[in-house]
Amino acid sequence: MSGIASILAVGTELLGTTRLDTNSLFLTGELAALGIRVVRKACVGDAWDELVAEIRAALEAAPLLVITGGLGPTDDDRTKEAVAHVFGRALVRDEEILARLVERFRKRGITMPKVNEKQADVIEGAVVLPNPRGSAPGYLLEAGGRTVVLLPGVPVEMKGMWTDGARPLLARGTDGRGLHLRILKTAGLPESLVEERAKPVYEAHPDVPFTILASPGEVLLQFAARGTKAEATELLDRLESDFRKALGADIFGRDEETLEGVVGDLLRTRSFTLSLAESCTGGGLAARITDVPGSSDYFLGAAVTYANEAKREIAYVAEETLLRHGAVSEESAREMAAGARRRFSSTVALAITGVAGPGGGTPEKPVGTVHIALDAADGTRAHRKVMLPGERAMIRRWTTALALVLLRQYLMGRLETGRT
Amino acid sequence: MSGIASILAVGTELLGTTRLDTNSLFLTGELAALGIRVVRKACVGDAWDELVAEIRAALEAAPLLVITGGLGPTDDDRTKEAVAHVFGRALVRDEEILARLVERFRKRGITMPKVNEKQADVIEGAVVLPNPRGSAPGYLLEAGGRTVVLLPGVPVEMKGMWTDGARPLLARGTDGRGLHLRILKTAGLPESLVEERAKPVYEAHPDVPFTILASPGEVLLQFAARGTKAEATELLDRLESDFRKALGADIFGRDEETLEGVVGDLLRTRSFTLSLAESCTGGGLAARITDVPGSSDYFLGAAVTYANEAKREIAYVAEETLLRHGAVSEESAREMAAGARRRFSSTVALAITGVAGPGGGTPEKPVGTVHIALDAADGTRAHRKVMLPGERAMIRRWTTALALVLLRQYLMGRLETGRT
Repeated sequence: MSGIASILAVGTELLGTTRLDTNSLFLTGELAALGIRVVRKACVGDAWDELVAEIRAALEAAPLLVITGGLGPTDDDRTKEAVAHVFGRALVRDEEILARLVERFRKRGITMPKVNEKQADVIEGAVVLPNPRGSAPGYLLEAGGRTVVLLPGVPVEMKGMWTDGARPLLARGTDGRGLHLRILKTAGLPESLVEERAKPVYEAHPDVPFTILASPGEVLLQFAARGTKAEATELLDRLESDFRKALGADIFGRDEETLEGVVGDLLRTRSFTLSLAESCTGGGLAARITDVPGSSDYFLGAAVTYANEAKREIAYVAEETLLRHGAVSEESAREMAAGARRRFSSTVALAITGVAGPGGGTPEKPVGTVHIALDAADGTRAHRKVMLPGERAMIRRWTTALALVLLRQYLMGRLETGRT
Repeated sequence: MSGIASILAVGTELLGTTRLDTNSLFLTGELAALGIRVVRKACVGDAWDELVAEIRAALEAAPLLVITGGLGPTDDDRTKEAVAHVFGRALVRDEEILARLVERFRKRGITMPKVNEKQADVIEGAVVLPNPRGSAPGYLLEAGGRTVVLLPGVPVEMKGMWTDGARPLLARGTDGRGLHLRILKTAGLPESLVEERAKPVYEAHPDVPFTILASPGEVLLQFAARGTKAEATELLDRLESDFRKALGADIFGRDEETLEGVVGDLLRTRSFTLSLAESCTGGGLAARITDVPGSSDYFLGAAVTYANEAKREIAYVAEETLLRHGAVSEESAREMAAGARRRFSSTVALAITGVAGPGGGTPEKPVGTVHIALDAADGTRAHRKVMLPGERAMIRRWTTALALVLLRQYLMGRLETGRT
C-alpha cells in the first residue's frame, strides 16, 4: 500500500472545549513511514447518522481510513456497528473472543458484565486485531478497494494494537518505501537566523520535504526522505551532515533528545556537578533539569531566591550589590552564580535574575530584561544579558533555554566569556 | 441562529506530526454560548480538490461552517477562493481594503509586496470582517440556507476577529439562548470519590450536560445550562451551590482559577509569606507557584535540595535524621519544612521529599512514595505520606498538587494535623 489516507477520531468528548485528538499525530508519523500521506483528519461524536456520514465522507477522500475510538462496551460505542453498516456486513459472535474476555475479567476477580459481551461480536470478513492492553479488539477490513482500520481511543491501547496488529498487515501491502522523518534541534537562536543558515541546504534538495518549527527557546529543522528504511536513513544521514556543516554545534540534538537531557549527559560524562540560583524563573530551570530521570547523578540543587533577602542569605549576594545595581543586574547575577556554587559545592553553577512581568518593569529594566551568569570551579565566569519579547510564560521558558545553552557552550569548551 | 455547526481547519501543517488545531477548542466554547453545537471538526491541507471536497462535506453535515486558516497572501492560501468556488461567487477587488493594506505596510516602513494585493479581493456578497491584528480580512457568507465564516489561522487574529466581527453577526440571528459552561475544580481527591459525592447532584438534574475531567492532581466537574446568559447563570449558580454542598471546601475554584492562584490569594489576604524545600519535585512546586503573576508578594523562595548534602547545608536537616530515617521519610520532610522556614524567615513553609522514579525505589520505599510536610510560625506542624501511581512526570505533578492542597487546608483553618 502507498498513497493517501484519512484519520477519523470518534467520541463526543473530542467535540468539547478541552480535548484534542492527539492519536492522529502518532498515526500520521506511522503512516508516513509506510509511504502513506494523511490528507484529512476529522473528529465526530457518537450520533449514529453523523458517524455513518463521516465514515462515508472519509472513504470518499482516501482509500485508507484509520478510525480511533468508539470500540468500548457501552451503548455510545458504535464505531464497529457503523463501519459494518456502511459496508453492508453483519456482526458475528466470536466464541473464542468471548472466552478470552470472560477469562480476562475472571483473572481480575470480576464476573464479566453483560454489557461487555458485545465486544465479542466481530465484523464479518474483517481481520480481528487483538488488544493485550484492554478489552476492545480492533479490526482491519478490506472491501471494494477500500481499507478501514479500527483502533481503540485509549492512546496506549491504540499504539500497541497499531504496532503489533495493524502496521504489519498494512506494511505487507506496501513496497516498503515510506516517508521517514528526522528532526534536528537548535536552541537559543532566532528562527530567522536558523532559516538563513539552513536555506542553502534545503534549497539544494528541493525534493526533500522540509519544515522549520519554532517554540520558545528552540528552533527545529524537520525533513523527510522517501524509500526503504535503509535508503531513507542514508539520505537523512547525508542531509543531517549538511545541516550540521551549516549550523555547526548550534545543533544540540535530534529526534527525541531534549536540551536538558543533552546537557545532563555532558555533565555526567565530565563528572561535573551543577547547582543553580534562580530568581525570575522561580524554579523552572531546576524543574526542567530534574525532568530528566537520573539527573541526581549531577544535579545538587537550586536556591530559588525570589526575595532579595533570600539572594543575600542563601546565594551570598552582597547587600551593597543589590543596593547599587539592583537585583536585576549583571553584578547580582554573577554573585548569585558564585554564591550558588559555594553554597552547594558544585563544579559549575548557573544564575538567573530578570523581570518576567507583567509587573516589575521600569524604563531602565523593562519586562523581558534577563541576566544569566555562569561560574565554574576552573575559574570560568560568563554572563549574558538578553531582552526577551512576549509575556511571562514565554519569557520564563526562553530564559531556561538560554541558561542551558550557556551551560552547554561551557561544557563543550565553546564559551566566549566576553561581555554580551 | 441555533442548532449545529462544523469546524474546518485549513493548513498542511495541521496534517503533520507536531501541530493540532487548538483554535477549535475556543470556537467550540464560543459557539456553545450562542446555542450552537459542534457536530464535527476536520483538518485538511491546501490542495485545491481536497479543500473544495472538505468544504462541501462540511456543508452537508451542518448549516453553519466555521473555517480557520488559509487566508494569507501566498499561493498556498486558497480558503477564500475555494469557498467562492463552492458557492459560485466571484472575487472582487476592494479598493478600500487595498488602500488600508498599503497604508498598514507603509506605517511599518515597508512597500507592500505585490503578493499581498490578493488580500484585497473579496468574496462577492460576503460581509468582510476586519483584522486589526493582521493583514488577512475574514468573511461571513450566507447563501442557500448555509452560513460560512472564514477566520485567520493565527490564534490571536482568529480570536479578535471572532469576538469583534463574527460573533455579533451570528448572535443577531440567535434568540440569545446558548449553552453556557461552568467548571468547578477539586484537587487532591481520587476521581471515584469526587464522582460518588457529585452523583446525587447530577442525577437530580438529568437534563444538565455533565462531565468529569481528571488530570494529575485535579478532578473537574463541568456542567452547562441552556438559555440566555441571565437564565443560564441562574441555573448554573443553583447547580454550583448544590455541588458545593456535596463537596464542600474540597472545591477550590471555578472556571479559569488555578490551585496555585487560589492559594496565592489566601496567602496575600493573610499577609503570610511562603518558602519551600523541594527534593523529588526538583523546583516544580516553586515554578508552579511563581507561574502566578505577582507571586513575589508572598513567595520568598525555595531550597531545591536534590542532594543530601544540600538538605543538611541549606534546609538544616540533621545528618543523623538522614542516616537513621533516610532522605525519604516523615522525619526528613518535617525537618526540611522547619529548615526552609528558618532559612527564609517565612510565615509558613512546605517540604517535599520522595521517590519520583524511574530509579531509586526500594521494597520499603517504592517509586511513588512521597512525604509532604508543613511548618508554620503559629506552631502548626503537619505531615502527609502518599503512595502515588504512574510515572515520573505524573508523580511530580500529583505531588505539587497535594502540597498546595495541604497549604490551602492550613490557610483555611481546616488542617487535621494528625498523622496520615
